[in-house]
Formats: sequence, structure tokens, C-alpha cells
Amino acid sequence: MTPRMQQISQLDRVIHEPARLAIMLILGGAGDADFLYLQREGGFTQGNLSGHLAKLEEAGYVEIEKKFKGKVPLTVCSLTGKGRTAFAEYSNRMLGLLQSNGACGSPRP
Amino acid sequence: MTPRMQQISQLDRVIHEPARLAIMLILGGAGDADFLYLQREGGFTQGNLSGHLAKLEEAGYVEIEKKFKGKVPLTVCSLTGKGRTAFAEYSNRMLGLLQSNGACGSPRP
Repeated sequence: MTPRMQQISQLDRVIHEPARLAIMLILGGAGDADFLYLQREGGFTQGNLSGHLAKLEEAGYVEIEKKFKGKVPLTVCSLTGKGRTAFAEYSNRMLGLLQSNGACGSPRP
Repeated sequence: MTPRMQQISQLDRVIHEPARLAIMLILGGAGDADFLYLQREGGFTQGNLSGHLAKLEEAGYVEIEKKFKGKVPLTVCSLTGKGRTAFAEYSNRMLGLLQSNGACGSPRP
């Protein structure tokens, strides 16, 4: 197996799954986000978002905190340090793979 | 759903799966490749590679041709025009998502 293929085999499957990639992108940009914001922003159903958040929490990438804003309950999700590192590694790996291949639309010689 | 999230929902799942991404990357670089070369290069088992090639062929992204080199049978796999276009679209979409997020931030050690 070549180094490039090793990079692919090391892609973090927890993040690679598109719905979870969406969550990581939103949280990576916003820092943290309320459950309802995430649901609306990503076009998730409640059950779908819950399931994916549980996987990210289990991996230690996301922290979920129950708060109150006045009397309104909020479920605030944020990336952990481990989640940030894993996402940066995933991104660098994918960017390296796609850029090294010149796959981004450049005409084939 | 925001435009960024639409980009994610439009990611081509046929290509996004890591084993098939590996095949697309190898074929994108090499033009075409013999089955045994693909198997060795990607670290695939025979059954695993066959299954993924079948999915790519079904999507019209890969062409599989049986040839002979002297008396030795060869199974030559190559990207179709449709496959090239789909791969370029996938790559541009992923690059756009990861770069726009600045997720590639720190250089990888």
C-alpha cells in the first residue's frame, strides 16, 4: 500500500460521514451551537441529529451541555480540543489527497 | 439549509466512500490500471475490490475491459468521461467546503 493509500485508510470515518462532516463544519465555524440551530442549519430531523451527535460525543469530539436561557432550555453543542485536532487532521488529509491529485478540475494532460 | 449544507448534501456518495475514493484517485492519476495493480496499490482483497468496482461501473464512472497481454488475461479498469467529471465535481465540492472553513489552518507536521 502506497503512502497515499495509507492516508485514505487513516481517514477518520467518524468525521467522514457527510452528516457528521456537516456538524463539524458548523461547530468549527461557530464555536458552539444550540441543538435547534444545528437542526435548522443542517436540515436534520431531531432523531437524525441526536444520533450523529451521540457518535461525535462518544468519540470525544463534541461536548453537549444542557443550559437555560431564562426559562428556556438550551442544548449547547461545542467542539472539544480533541474534536478540533481530529477535524484539522481530517481536513489536511483530504486536502492533501485531492490537491496532490490535481483532481480539482484541472484538465488532464 | 444553507448553501454550504447543500454542498454537503450533494456530495457524491458513490465517490465519497473511502475505498472508492482510493480507486478514483488511482485511476484519475494513472488513466487506467490493471485489476491486480489496483488491488496491490490500494491494499484490497479481491472480493472487496470487485464489489467497489461494480458500484463504480454501475454509476457509469469506470469501464472494465477484459484483455490479453500475450496469453495472460488482464482486467483493465479506466475512468469514463462521466467518471472524470463526477470526480472533478466531488473534489471541487470537498475542497470548497474544507478550504472555506479554514479547517486546513495549521500545516500538518
